[in-house]
Amino acid sequence: MNDILALRPDESQPTPLYLQLARNLEAAIHAGQWKAEQALPSERNLSELLSISRVTARKALEVLLEQGLIRRSQGSGTFITPRLEQPLSRLSSFSERLRAKGFVPGSRWLEREIALPSHEELIRLALSPRDQVARLKRLRTADDTVMAIEMSTLPAALLPDPEAVGDSLYAYLDSIGRPVVRALQHIRAINASTEFAALVGIEPGTAMLLMTRVGYLEDNTPIELTDTYCRNDYYDFVAELRR
Amino acid sequence: MNDILALRPDESQPTPLYLQLARNLEAAIHAGQWKAEQALPSERNLSELLSISRVTARKALEVLLEQGLIRRSQGSGTFITPRLEQPLSRLSSFSERLRAKGFVPGSRWLEREIALPSHEELIRLALSPRDQVARLKRLRTADDTVMAIEMSTLPAALLPDPEAVGDSLYAYLDSIGRPVVRALQHIRAINASTEFAALVGIEPGTAMLLMTRVGYLEDNTPIELTDTYCRNDYYDFVAELRR
Repeated sequence: MNDILALRPDESQPTPLYLQLARNLEAAIHAGQWKAEQALPSERNLSELLSISRVTARKALEVLLEQGLIRRSQGSGTFITPRLEQPLSRLSSFSERLRAKGFVPGSRWLEREIALPSHEELIRLALSPRDQVARLKRLRTADDTVMAIEMSTLPAALLPDPEAVGDSLYAYLDSIGRPVVRALQHIRAINASTEFAALVGIEPGTAMLLMTRVGYLEDNTPIELTDTYCRNDYYDFVAELRR
Repeated sequence: MNDILALRPDESQPTPLYLQLARNLEAAIHAGQWKAEQALPSERNLSELLSISRVTARKALEVLLEQGLIRRSQGSGTFITPRLEQPLSRLSSFSERLRAKGFVPGSRWLEREIALPSHEELIRLALSPRDQVARLKRLRTADDTVMAIEMSTLPAALLPDPEAVGDSLYAYLDSIGRPVVRALQHIRAINASTEFAALVGIEPGTAMLLMTRVGYLEDNTPIELTDTYCRNDYYDFVAELRR
């Protein structure tokens, strides 16, 4: 409750009250004040607790809806959107980051196979054409929302049985003593193909983020090539830059 | 010439020769071995200098063409594509990075005005609704290629005369003793609007990268809000991640 009171806009400031409130709510969402299953305070609650008009409370919530930070659930209130803040400096686990916000991370396997490498895989993983690779293709989900399609390739020598990978590829690599300690990541924009659009539930042609990652062992051997096709509305790639 | 010989594929390796050559050429392009105005060695030259077949040389160049790293210019050979490697850790100048590769960086101004802030600008730059802002809108070019549309907003107190900015906004801010030392950057994918598509020469709806940056002074005051709409084929956002 004290936390809610800290959201109160300051009437002595020239910035409109609803914008102040929207900004305060945004900061509280980023700080993790609400988890996936917790409803945000309603318009009426905000208005009563903060001694502001319902119009101000409504307009603040509308700003957040527009930004995609929250969504309304028929009859049961306003909830935060599953949204993955992906810092572009630290390798971090999809599962851990979602769990911290109260979402249940999951995978739906589309494909797990042993195959011969494509040219791209040959080059990126420095393989010989006779080396086999393990390919993993899956949907990444938060609660029941599909957030991304992920396709990973590893040398089959490291992953002879692709079924051995559970929810986390990195946990598997840790368990066999071959942790990825560094990765190079490229980010591009692509138009969703008909196949991918159907898999993640968007219109074909919608812009998606494609993150291509090569992961390296401590000795600089590349062992992981991953393409992640991310729903733009659920991912937030953030970088802090210094001069 | 010695540099060219270093590209020679190794026949004792199991990787196909053309893929080895493509990989070596790619590394040499990234290392800056060719500048904008220099033609890459031709198929015939590569074949003769490296003692490989013309087919191998051709297939290697085709891999690079497909990756968008090079382009053919009618009758005059193969040249590197203007491509901005944008590290996601360091604030660096568009102009300097292109110049280092031999391209002539430029701007075409679309708009320079003083106006009242939008809600977004109010929030991001922590302004009061009565503060004016300076808005700059321009095309960023490399030689004659339009690479991006850039829209920047600053408090008018810092930039009372938007015409005072030359090619580099950061150079202007340095000159008035208000350098941006840190920035937070978000990356999203968007479908190009009809207006933007026409400005950068792509089909409407094509996926573009939208980079939104807030730049801060040493004392953490936000003073710059910039949206850059980047042609996906000319930008390469790269991040190095560690665990």
